[in-house]
Amino acid sequence: MTKSELLETYEESSQQLAGHGWRNVAVLKDAFESIDGDVKSDKYGSGAVIEDFQQQMAEFLGKEASIFFPSGTMAQQIALRVWCDQNGVKKVAYHPLSHLEIHEEDGLKELHGIETILLADKERVIELEDVTSMDEEIACLLLELPQREIGGQLPSFETLQAISAHCRQNGIKLHLDGARILECLPYYKKSITEVCSLFDSVYLSMYKGIGGIAGAILAGDQEFMAQTKIWKKRHGGDLISLYPYILSAETYLAQRKDRMEEYYQHAIELAAYFNSCEGMSTIPEVPVSNMFHVHFQEAPEKIAPILTEAQQYMDLGVTGYLKAEQIGCSFEVSLGDQYKLISRSKVAGVFERLDEKMKSLN
Amino acid sequence: MTKSELLETYEESSQQLAGHGWRNVAVLKDAFESIDGDVKSDKYGSGAVIEDFQQQMAEFLGKEASIFFPSGTMAQQIALRVWCDQNGVKKVAYHPLSHLEIHEEDGLKELHGIETILLADKERVIELEDVTSMDEEIACLLLELPQREIGGQLPSFETLQAISAHCRQNGIKLHLDGARILECLPYYKKSITEVCSLFDSVYLSMYKGIGGIAGAILAGDQEFMAQTKIWKKRHGGDLISLYPYILSAETYLAQRKDRMEEYYQHAIELAAYFNSCEGMSTIPEVPVSNMFHVHFQEAPEKIAPILTEAQQYMDLGVTGYLKAEQIGCSFEVSLGDQYKLISRSKVAGVFERLDEKMKSLN
Repeated sequence: MTKSELLETYEESSQQLAGHGWRNVAVLKDAFESIDGDVKSDKYGSGAVIEDFQQQMAEFLGKEASIFFPSGTMAQQIALRVWCDQNGVKKVAYHPLSHLEIHEEDGLKELHGIETILLADKERVIELEDVTSMDEEIACLLLELPQREIGGQLPSFETLQAISAHCRQNGIKLHLDGARILECLPYYKKSITEVCSLFDSVYLSMYKGIGGIAGAILAGDQEFMAQTKIWKKRHGGDLISLYPYILSAETYLAQRKDRMEEYYQHAIELAAYFNSCEGMSTIPEVPVSNMFHVHFQEAPEKIAPILTEAQQYMDLGVTGYLKAEQIGCSFEVSLGDQYKLISRSKVAGVFERLDEKMKSLN
Repeated sequence: MTKSELLETYEESSQQLAGHGWRNVAVLKDAFESIDGDVKSDKYGSGAVIEDFQQQMAEFLGKEASIFFPSGTMAQQIALRVWCDQNGVKKVAYHPLSHLEIHEEDGLKELHGIETILLADKERVIELEDVTSMDEEIACLLLELPQREIGGQLPSFETLQAISAHCRQNGIKLHLDGARILECLPYYKKSITEVCSLFDSVYLSMYKGIGGIAGAILAGDQEFMAQTKIWKKRHGGDLISLYPYILSAETYLAQRKDRMEEYYQHAIELAAYFNSCEGMSTIPEVPVSNMFHVHFQEAPEKIAPILTEAQQYMDLGVTGYLKAEQIGCSFEVSLGDQYKLISRSKVAGVFERLDEKMKSLN
């Protein structure tokens, strides 16, 4: 049994527990179906298509200005660089499992020469005392909400407020890695502007919960954004045309921004199903957004056949991969539009099957 | 009379001398019309959509491998960085009007700390003796073919061969800024692989002569390309989905790669029209690609009303802007699909009108 059989049966299942559906060309075609061919392309960051959306997103996030970037990797490195330049300190702090630390080939260090301080343990989110007990001077603190690599955990809103107040008192800029920030609002019971008001700069992904094709919004004050625009060109991100991403982001944002409560409730329901199965547990146990991680004590080689069999038997995709952990293995689940389309008996059926097979494993 | 009236009448004209037509959403919709919605997105640089096109482009350019980048700015900075790292020298040479020197907010210097040596005068292309007489050690020489900012001028093919031989003898990597390289082939009477074989790395734009939406191909040997892939991620260029650019590039490359001879011949014809008018001249006088610049001795304020009147009178767009020069002004013309759709009497008509008005100016 190989990992690819797991992926094969996942992809062949007519429905999947997680996500918005396949990332295929239909995502683009659907978004552009109702858009007139005469709509003019943006041109190197100018033009109604990009300027209107940036204005709309700045208002949505409660910031003075925003800029559309091709990627969050680019947007965030640049945000940190501008804060470093403004504060005259080439040092920032973030979580040890920050996207910038583990998924970007050290772009922040290699391109910008910025040093990083890793706060908190890998297993938990950054708390107030991690910040207040920091000895070294930093230009900026980055908080990722939710902390994706540990299943999408969140600090309390009170902690966010306290960290924000501390940073303002100490001249530390606070940046929000909010790739999935919309997905956190139902748990916080706060508006997007209430959350963003705690931060000096905010990044929001266009293709996570929103389900667009690609792209990112970076928002902040006018002066800050003007600086980021120069770096956007330096990075090679000031494309002649970003409209394929912008117009699809606009479409899917309108479609999904108010469904986050639904995804969140479904995540709670689905995590409970996983936790009810023999030998499976989720982190967090009760999700605080639309996402969680599923953990097993056994090695991938033992778990994959069980998942493969169950998803094939019920024609319902559970996961296409397993990540080996120090002990056992895991996979990630992010709820989207798909879950509510699946009959409850089918959902119950796949977990009965999984539970049965996991029990016979021991 | 303002510049914007010039632009207005240009945009309102039902036909335009230059280009492939407006850069609007129809460019995307046309390209995707025949593409099935089930085609899977690429994913962070993997998947058939991107891998197949990269393979196809590597073969097309006669190189071992190629990578699709969101922009040429990103592709070229990275190419130079990798050559610098490989040669252990953080210095490159290029033309004083290279895209990297004047249009990228100094990304090469600011992000990569690479020093640049400017070869040749601004008014002419780099010749062999500019290269052989260089005192300083450099990792890489970048040649832009055609040299866009001086109207698309070209060195002779023999010069290219001699520069290439010199670089190989002296351990200098030779990089081709070939944003518009396909447009040069009819003049050189060479195949694309013959030209590319002189260079260690090659960049080709997907939206100049090809007329795609955005994006760039960088090609070279396997080891070099593997390094550039790491930097692509660092720059924030490894997008989850590049297929909107890739699939449209594929469509328009197939459609236009064999029309370059036609664009070239039209450029020669159209430049002759401009040169036949009072007070107008083109650089080069006889184009060597699909492009040239039109120069006037008078200031933009004097020329704009004449162009505005003529393009309105004939309902034929000549230019939407004028760039002020030290003496007089200029604009750029790049021939594409539009020119052959215009009746010969209309073309002759607009130049008669221009000639008449220019004569009455003096």
